[in-house]
Amino acid sequence: VIERLVIVGVGLLGGSAALAARAAGLARRIVGVGRDRARLGPPVAAGALDEATTDLPAGVAGADLVLVAVPVLASEEILARIWAAAPAGTVVTDVGSTKAGIVRRAEALRPAGRLHFVGSHPMAGSERSGFSAARADLFQGARVVVTPGETSEPRAVKTVTGFWEALGARVSLLDAEAHDRAVAAVSHLPHVVAYALMDAVARLEADALDLAARGFRDTTRIAASDPDVWTEIFVANRAALGQCLRGFRQALDELEALAARDPAALRAALARIRGAREALR
Amino acid sequence: VIERLVIVGVGLLGGSAALAARAAGLARRIVGVGRDRARLGPPVAAGALDEATTDLPAGVAGADLVLVAVPVLASEEILARIWAAAPAGTVVTDVGSTKAGIVRRAEALRPAGRLHFVGSHPMAGSERSGFSAARADLFQGARVVVTPGETSEPRAVKTVTGFWEALGARVSLLDAEAHDRAVAAVSHLPHVVAYALMDAVARLEADALDLAARGFRDTTRIAASDPDVWTEIFVANRAALGQCLRGFRQALDELEALAARDPAALRAALARIRGAREALR
Repeated sequence: VIERLVIVGVGLLGGSAALAARAAGLARRIVGVGRDRARLGPPVAAGALDEATTDLPAGVAGADLVLVAVPVLASEEILARIWAAAPAGTVVTDVGSTKAGIVRRAEALRPAGRLHFVGSHPMAGSERSGFSAARADLFQGARVVVTPGETSEPRAVKTVTGFWEALGARVSLLDAEAHDRAVAAVSHLPHVVAYALMDAVARLEADALDLAARGFRDTTRIAASDPDVWTEIFVANRAALGQCLRGFRQALDELEALAARDPAALRAALARIRGAREALR
Repeated sequence: VIERLVIVGVGLLGGSAALAARAAGLARRIVGVGRDRARLGPPVAAGALDEATTDLPAGVAGADLVLVAVPVLASEEILARIWAAAPAGTVVTDVGSTKAGIVRRAEALRPAGRLHFVGSHPMAGSERSGFSAARADLFQGARVVVTPGETSEPRAVKTVTGFWEALGARVSLLDAEAHDRAVAAVSHLPHVVAYALMDAVARLEADALDLAARGFRDTTRIAASDPDVWTEIFVANRAALGQCLRGFRQALDELEALAARDPAALRAALARIRGAREALR
């Protein structure tokens, strides 16, 4: 049992972690830290938090485990402030969708204190954001990638993996760079594609949106994702994402070329791709 | 009430139309025509068809309404054979996802007989195919675009729109070219994008598919669609689709460029796109 679990940023992910930790009886005290006092009211009222504060140093004082659940670039900035305020031995993790940046930042801070940072990326979410979208079962059955570095303490890695497993998640370990390449492919690329698709159709054939059926809705659902979160991700991971975009444009060009000159080869390509998609189920 | 409804091609769409017409008591006799006798067994056993035949002329003899529910290019070929066999006054419609080609073919046949063709495109479906995926409620609440031409008889248009409305669909009228541009944007473009996305990720980062969450699954769901159906659609509508692909590539390039040099403008673009997606709900 964690004595004092501190969650910095009580939105969709932080709020869901608070609700899930409460439901699992995982912490004696759950403390929320946010910038905006008004937004801290609902999670306290919902019983997800025992206390809430806008004062980061006061919040993390005495913490055993700190979960940073704010957008990626903000996480990197907030890390130094946690390092200055939390007691020696505190384990810190996060929920960021890119990991190389924050792991580098934590490595740079290591000489300055005896906190332990181990990065996490819960592959769960929603196109909705904020505590109003939080759910106690958000991590149930979800994959969480934990990214220990070469200098990570085994005890801290175990604390972080144990935390997510207690919330019902399946944990995978990957190094930060391999993680960033993988999520560029299966998460960031689909997001930028969905945004571009929604944008193109709205500009080219806005009237046609009346005819949009389930295929269009599913394919563009994540184009309603939070612009703040995704701006940071696209900027932070643009090298790996650029690599994926090159592969995607090539796949698209190939399909278009086959439609123009070789229907049998197009059919074979679509059958191969369908097989790959069906293997995913 | 229709005396003799003939459905050519008893797969997902034809089979669902048979089940829905049966449930609505819309026809005294429902006849299925297919190429493969073994595939006609299940819809007869399910009570969707009163009779089934592999003999197209025998099937359409005496028909009041013929629904052609085979892939697009096959529909165009089959139309001449229906024209030769069905009685004068028979109304013929289809379910094809592109309409300009079949409407042109029907116009060419018009001097050869007194049948009436009015094109239809039910915007309903599934990534699954075949009668085993058919459902009596597939058209309930779905949009069906009916595409009368300048020479269409009002009575035939009314028969076709009335048919779909009786199956629970909402009917829109559009001319065939406007329809083809609209579906290139909201249906064919998302399909080719989903296929390319699935293909690119399977090639670039196959191991990363283990980490694929709901966003990737939703965005690529329609990449499991029927290769026969979609090869014909991509080929038949490649001019309108090419136009959409140009717009899509431009939108993608813009987002990538903004991520590299102007995060604030990227954020504004994502917020604008999110607004367009939310307006769709």
